[in-house]
Amino acid sequence: MIQLPEVIKGAVEALTRLPGVGEKTAFRMVMNMTNWKSSELTSVGSALASLQHLKLCQECGMFADDNLCSICANETRQHTQTLCVVENASDLMAIEKSGTFKGVYHILGGVLNPLLGVGPDELKMDVLRDKIIKNQIQEIILAVNPSVEGDATCSYMKSILPETVQVERIGFGVPIGGSLEYLDPMTITKALENRKRF
Amino acid sequence: MIQLPEVIKGAVEALTRLPGVGEKTAFRMVMNMTNWKSSELTSVGSALASLQHLKLCQECGMFADDNLCSICANETRQHTQTLCVVENASDLMAIEKSGTFKGVYHILGGVLNPLLGVGPDELKMDVLRDKIIKNQIQEIILAVNPSVEGDATCSYMKSILPETVQVERIGFGVPIGGSLEYLDPMTITKALENRKRF
Repeated sequence: MIQLPEVIKGAVEALTRLPGVGEKTAFRMVMNMTNWKSSELTSVGSALASLQHLKLCQECGMFADDNLCSICANETRQHTQTLCVVENASDLMAIEKSGTFKGVYHILGGVLNPLLGVGPDELKMDVLRDKIIKNQIQEIILAVNPSVEGDATCSYMKSILPETVQVERIGFGVPIGGSLEYLDPMTITKALENRKRF
Repeated sequence: MIQLPEVIKGAVEALTRLPGVGEKTAFRMVMNMTNWKSSELTSVGSALASLQHLKLCQECGMFADDNLCSICANETRQHTQTLCVVENASDLMAIEKSGTFKGVYHILGGVLNPLLGVGPDELKMDVLRDKIIKNQIQEIILAVNPSVEGDATCSYMKSILPETVQVERIGFGVPIGGSLEYLDPMTITKALENRKRF
């Protein structure tokens, strides 16, 4: 078997750390990169390394160029009435894509998970509660994914908030374009529970 | 639509240059990388950038840690009798994996392709001819892929070599584990032409 140079092994090993990239894919990528110019390799290397300088919005925890993200810095958004609580940045972006929510967000950074040692302190739930009270937010939309941990997180959030704050959770049911015949029983149950007068 | 920070855009753009990585995949990778430690990001970045310091074997053109690759530096290989000519490093490694070839290689770096401006000079065919004559190599195995350009390259190679050198091309036919019913007519034609007394 041929002995490959250390730089190739190192690059393959580095790429396999990316999600969805196995050793074969990483190797194919590196073989392609061996044909690149030095400047291209340098720019890709530094673009990835510079992710460590990524800032987070001081208000909501979203990625930001500055102290505030583009949503929190946007004065046309409603900053006080409704707050949408999400697990992570990807969930936030999915909601933004729908274009229907005009308020601001709060990124939890995860859900309560005692087995992984994630408690209310890790998610800074007290900071969130204080922010909600201080900003006199009237409505909380919990856009947390449906799972045992997500449900527990929602219950805990409701329990620590004053009763004057209206807490809501996003609706669960049949996704648009979905087909009843292929959906799981839990979703069907939720869809039946969440039926609306037509 | 949310405005993402420049570092994220830069990293996504960098990853889309990898083969088989589209914008969605790159974005998913970057989202994952935002959870990485600074040291991990630095090491991946520098591992990829350091591919520019990759050396090539002075003898065969294969990737090497030093002046010679592990095959050319290996004294147990036959260095003079048979030379196997391949298009690129990946092809060389595929042959090495079979474990049947005990000689040394020469990497062409491509095939003749007048439309892309690749002629005998670009592939340094005269250097290869001089090497073959100087090293008194008796047998050349052309392990070049079957294509119009590959066929032309083989014909050209044979034409520039002295008649004392035996030039051979790897066999074409039904791959092991392959099924006749799914193979293309060209492969079947080759398999019939290349039949052997059983």
